[in-house]
Amino acid sequence: MTGQPSTPRPTSTDPLVIFMPSGKRGHFAVGTPVLTAARQLGVDLDSVCGGRGICSKCQIQPSFGAFSKHGVTSREDALSPFNAVEQRYDDKRGLKAGRRLGCQATIQGDVVIDVPAESQVHKQVVRKAAAVRDIIMDPATRLYVIDVAEPDMHDPTGDLQRIEKALQDQWNIQHISCAPSLFPRLQTVLRKGKWQVTAALHKTAADATPELIDLFADLPETGLYGLAIDLGSTTIAAHLCSLEDGRVIASSGLMNPQIRFGEDLMSRVSYAMMNPAGAAEMTAAVREALSNLAAEIISDGQVDPALVTEATIVCNPVMHHLLLGIDPTELGQAPFALATSDALNLAASDLAFTGMNPRANIYILPCIAGHVGADAAAVALSEEPHKSNELSLIVDVGTNAEILLGDKTRVLACSSPTGPAFEGAQISSGQRAAPGAIERVHIDPDTKEPRFSVIGCDLWSDEDGFAEAIATTGVTGICGSGIIEAVAEMRLAGLVDAAGLIGSPAQTGTARAVPTGRTHEYLIFDGTEANGPRITVTQGDIRAIQLAKSALYAGARLLMDEIGVDHVDRVVLAGAFGAHISPKHAMILGMIPDAPLDKVTSAGNAAGTGARIALCSLSARAEVEALVHRITKVETAIEPRFQEHFVAANAIPHATAPYPHLPPLPQVSFNSGGRDNGGAGRRRRRAK
Amino acid sequence: MTGQPSTPRPTSTDPLVIFMPSGKRGHFAVGTPVLTAARQLGVDLDSVCGGRGICSKCQIQPSFGAFSKHGVTSREDALSPFNAVEQRYDDKRGLKAGRRLGCQATIQGDVVIDVPAESQVHKQVVRKAAAVRDIIMDPATRLYVIDVAEPDMHDPTGDLQRIEKALQDQWNIQHISCAPSLFPRLQTVLRKGKWQVTAALHKTAADATPELIDLFADLPETGLYGLAIDLGSTTIAAHLCSLEDGRVIASSGLMNPQIRFGEDLMSRVSYAMMNPAGAAEMTAAVREALSNLAAEIISDGQVDPALVTEATIVCNPVMHHLLLGIDPTELGQAPFALATSDALNLAASDLAFTGMNPRANIYILPCIAGHVGADAAAVALSEEPHKSNELSLIVDVGTNAEILLGDKTRVLACSSPTGPAFEGAQISSGQRAAPGAIERVHIDPDTKEPRFSVIGCDLWSDEDGFAEAIATTGVTGICGSGIIEAVAEMRLAGLVDAAGLIGSPAQTGTARAVPTGRTHEYLIFDGTEANGPRITVTQGDIRAIQLAKSALYAGARLLMDEIGVDHVDRVVLAGAFGAHISPKHAMILGMIPDAPLDKVTSAGNAAGTGARIALCSLSARAEVEALVHRITKVETAIEPRFQEHFVAANAIPHATAPYPHLPPLPQVSFNSGGRDNGGAGRRRRRAK
Repeated sequence: MTGQPSTPRPTSTDPLVIFMPSGKRGHFAVGTPVLTAARQLGVDLDSVCGGRGICSKCQIQPSFGAFSKHGVTSREDALSPFNAVEQRYDDKRGLKAGRRLGCQATIQGDVVIDVPAESQVHKQVVRKAAAVRDIIMDPATRLYVIDVAEPDMHDPTGDLQRIEKALQDQWNIQHISCAPSLFPRLQTVLRKGKWQVTAALHKTAADATPELIDLFADLPETGLYGLAIDLGSTTIAAHLCSLEDGRVIASSGLMNPQIRFGEDLMSRVSYAMMNPAGAAEMTAAVREALSNLAAEIISDGQVDPALVTEATIVCNPVMHHLLLGIDPTELGQAPFALATSDALNLAASDLAFTGMNPRANIYILPCIAGHVGADAAAVALSEEPHKSNELSLIVDVGTNAEILLGDKTRVLACSSPTGPAFEGAQISSGQRAAPGAIERVHIDPDTKEPRFSVIGCDLWSDEDGFAEAIATTGVTGICGSGIIEAVAEMRLAGLVDAAGLIGSPAQTGTARAVPTGRTHEYLIFDGTEANGPRITVTQGDIRAIQLAKSALYAGARLLMDEIGVDHVDRVVLAGAFGAHISPKHAMILGMIPDAPLDKVTSAGNAAGTGARIALCSLSARAEVEALVHRITKVETAIEPRFQEHFVAANAIPHATAPYPHLPPLPQVSFNSGGRDNGGAGRRRRRAK
Repeated sequence: MTGQPSTPRPTSTDPLVIFMPSGKRGHFAVGTPVLTAARQLGVDLDSVCGGRGICSKCQIQPSFGAFSKHGVTSREDALSPFNAVEQRYDDKRGLKAGRRLGCQATIQGDVVIDVPAESQVHKQVVRKAAAVRDIIMDPATRLYVIDVAEPDMHDPTGDLQRIEKALQDQWNIQHISCAPSLFPRLQTVLRKGKWQVTAALHKTAADATPELIDLFADLPETGLYGLAIDLGSTTIAAHLCSLEDGRVIASSGLMNPQIRFGEDLMSRVSYAMMNPAGAAEMTAAVREALSNLAAEIISDGQVDPALVTEATIVCNPVMHHLLLGIDPTELGQAPFALATSDALNLAASDLAFTGMNPRANIYILPCIAGHVGADAAAVALSEEPHKSNELSLIVDVGTNAEILLGDKTRVLACSSPTGPAFEGAQISSGQRAAPGAIERVHIDPDTKEPRFSVIGCDLWSDEDGFAEAIATTGVTGICGSGIIEAVAEMRLAGLVDAAGLIGSPAQTGTARAVPTGRTHEYLIFDGTEANGPRITVTQGDIRAIQLAKSALYAGARLLMDEIGVDHVDRVVLAGAFGAHISPKHAMILGMIPDAPLDKVTSAGNAAGTGARIALCSLSARAEVEALVHRITKVETAIEPRFQEHFVAANAIPHATAPYPHLPPLPQVSFNSGGRDNGGAGRRRRRAK
């Protein structure tokens, strides 16, 4: 390594150096750079430039005290004086008071060296929301500054071979491969960088041979970036994250364009079965959407696309196959065989994925089974049921719900076809969670009058200034969490009975229950005077929510049957787009089994978080790859008990299990015989 | 392995089995399949189907004699009777008399088993022409028949993961990767093959992780194929070879379409320097040509393109870089730095190479230096100077000549810019070696009348039936070996003097020396009466040959200077398109240093042969990769002695060294002062 002197073996008479917070210590010869001492002791001190005083990653803070047997060491004696390289860096970028560059400061006497968190390679990133677990940075792609030998006519070797030699000599990286599409860039970058360049090396695993995926003439000071992508049936969400510290730089989402081929998974499988080029059309659509989303989010984050060298993708099995160009037909029929289930490392070009570095690596998390995908694996990685003493039920609400149930001793998984209602699709006034969407609803049990809040505004609709606050977005529709609250509140207010029927104005005593043909709808917001929407909850909306929540409950119940329990210790609600479902309302609906309300928590987009964890950490990838093999898969599609639970769970809340943790609900019944007689009955008629 | 019984440990009372020709022997329990016994002893007995009686690769021939201590074993007693599997195979494809399938026949008594050559995995392929070395088959891609478990809903794994399991259990292949573009095919092939399929696995080295590059529902009985490609500046030649036995199935060639951007290497480098998109244009041109050539030759060979899973490419550094999409500008100026010099394994898609299996692996041999390419490495692999006791000069004649000089102790290499004259380009009547081209010329020293032969016809032009024999092709031009013979014969016949001047009719005594302005041309063939060409050797042609042969000789001489010798023990002439240069005529021209004529041999297209050896053998690839690091590179472009040798070598033969092995040449001189005063002089004028 540059600047590393060849020193004689140190003895106990040499200065003592103690690194904090690790406490690692050793004696080093006078003149040893702090970075060198840290490396020899295995202290977690970062360096991208390898001690050239360029990257400033190795900042340390010396401190002094009476620990030395030689007595107190003064600040002046312990380390070499501030040198020209440090001064240049301080002038250019500013160095915090007391900080030194570990590669420049050399040991002169006994000293305690504090390694600040940001100088550690394996930084711990504390998640702000729902901090179930921390992420320890261990990214697959890293930067290395190297000095490459200039070509010598009399000892001819290729530029690439001299790059390899530099990585061997300067970073002890013995062998690399090189992405072929990088060949054309090598010469120009080396010459532009005057033979000092920064190599980006990607590894698929801790012990894998690194691949050279890019070369930069200068050190990219911001470090590298990656995309964590949650590819859902209805929505696609992505976070652009720093690979230095896991920070989210920008987030964005869009509707899955495959919706035009079918709202839910089985419709898309059918489309592939019925149309010879159907699967290929859907593959092209989702790949194009991913490229567009990447370009948009990278532009939003004002990041150089060349620095985005990683992406991780979580998705259900049908999305997984369509993304990979595999016909999903096999997933539509028993035995629901996946073409491939293990985690995948692909080149961006394998997926025609543009918008970022063309040699970026795409990591797709492993699938668990034909109906339990990489999204469920990601939820498991994020929520860690396998490390819990409590029996945890984790429900990832999407067009297909991923359900995990388990504790330290075992984890079970299944998926349940809830349909897109929870995401606001197939709901009369539904929309995806975006500014303007109603996300919270409260209905006064006496007046039956609603109040609500919309995404992008902190005020409730009956608070002063609401109209002004939403002037730009308006009230545009109702999102998934909004419709769940609306239906639950309608049940609480006695507007809806246990069978899911909306009462008439006479039965409910409010004109907001508006007759529409043979049924009624409940008016939440009428914006028609200002040419805005009229937002209601229709009888059809309630039926859609009933079908969705019955499917969800039936899946959870099936896993409980497998383990042989009637209750769970805690429930975690997760869902795409971080839609925060209210635990109380979810329980009123009967989406989930009964649990103490303080044991029902919302985890935001756990699948997306799993994608982000995998993006930041190779060891997390190894963990999820091992974990999926330990999860027991339960197949709902062919299980007769699933149908039984599904039918029995139609009531609001369902009638098969008590809900001791809920308040008593109004004893109303609006069934008038001739009208809608309930989802379950309707469903049976349909089946004839 | 299928059909392999679990037997107790054999003892010396069990039957003795001796395999020939290896002589390996051992005792085996009665009932042990011959294939199992062979595997346990490490006998080289092939099997693609793993003992399923499908592939017939494990054919053996039992023989019997008095070797047994139990006395003579009869044919009936030694092996199990011919069984139904063997009978079915014999009925369907025919089994030679006495042959058995090693996987079906089990050991019943003492027996000698002959393993015929075609049943050995590592077959020796004896090269017919110029059998300098044999090829031992060791291809990078192999076929494996596997029985894959059907999917089980209750123990869900991917199809690919069950393929991996089958390879582990049935072939002891512990880990594979899978080409992503194969994912979409896995499901259909497995189901079409009813879960018994043939996997094609490619390895980049003996100890590398194999990659699954294709899956076939049936066992491809012909085995796999590969393309050995010699990508020259002027011509591209390719052989389609069996990866089972190295046999050439079809051969073809075409002109390098980059010629329109410049005749020789430096013109193309200039084109890249002068035109912003120049390199990209040339890359696209050569890639398209390779794809077209592959499609043509595979169609000619009537081979399924999916079975062509390999290609090897040899080329000079400029072609190498343009093929890879690398700007060759750096190769046009000191220090002539290559972007990458090591051998490369690329996917066909990396080079936009179509016409064969889309997941075929392309192996590009290593380059030696900026002016000494993979073609020189291939010549070294083919001709093996490093294994020779004699000091060998190997000259690969092309637009750029690759020159190797060495023996067991050391090998030197350089390249020399001969230009395209030796390939028939820049010659007035020149053409590439193809039917109709004059390839042999003889001129009667008394009458000065020529006779010649053309490619595609065994008769000389003065033999009976010649006109009829060439009726379809006609006489179309003169190829590289033809022009060399023509000029040398003109010198022998006194039509040309040592300075390279063609004499006048008066000076030479023949009307075939036709005045053309200030110089003369020699008429070989006049087809104008039949609307055919008039084929002559012009003064310009002789100057082009003089420049080419001077460059060639100067390169060889430079290497001899480096070693400090005045003569070499043997000379090997190699060249693209197997153009057989006559050793005598090459020496008369002074192309090569003096040597006993029986020590000057022609090796055909040695670079192409090197490509073919590398195609057939992973160990040959390892050998050439190690060899290039041992070769000392000599740079001609900046060596003043090269210019000196070049100028001094202008005469025919050159005047700087004696040629004791040549007959005395006519002492003529046609220099008339005012006319052409010789190539060297003309060259000097040009340089002003």
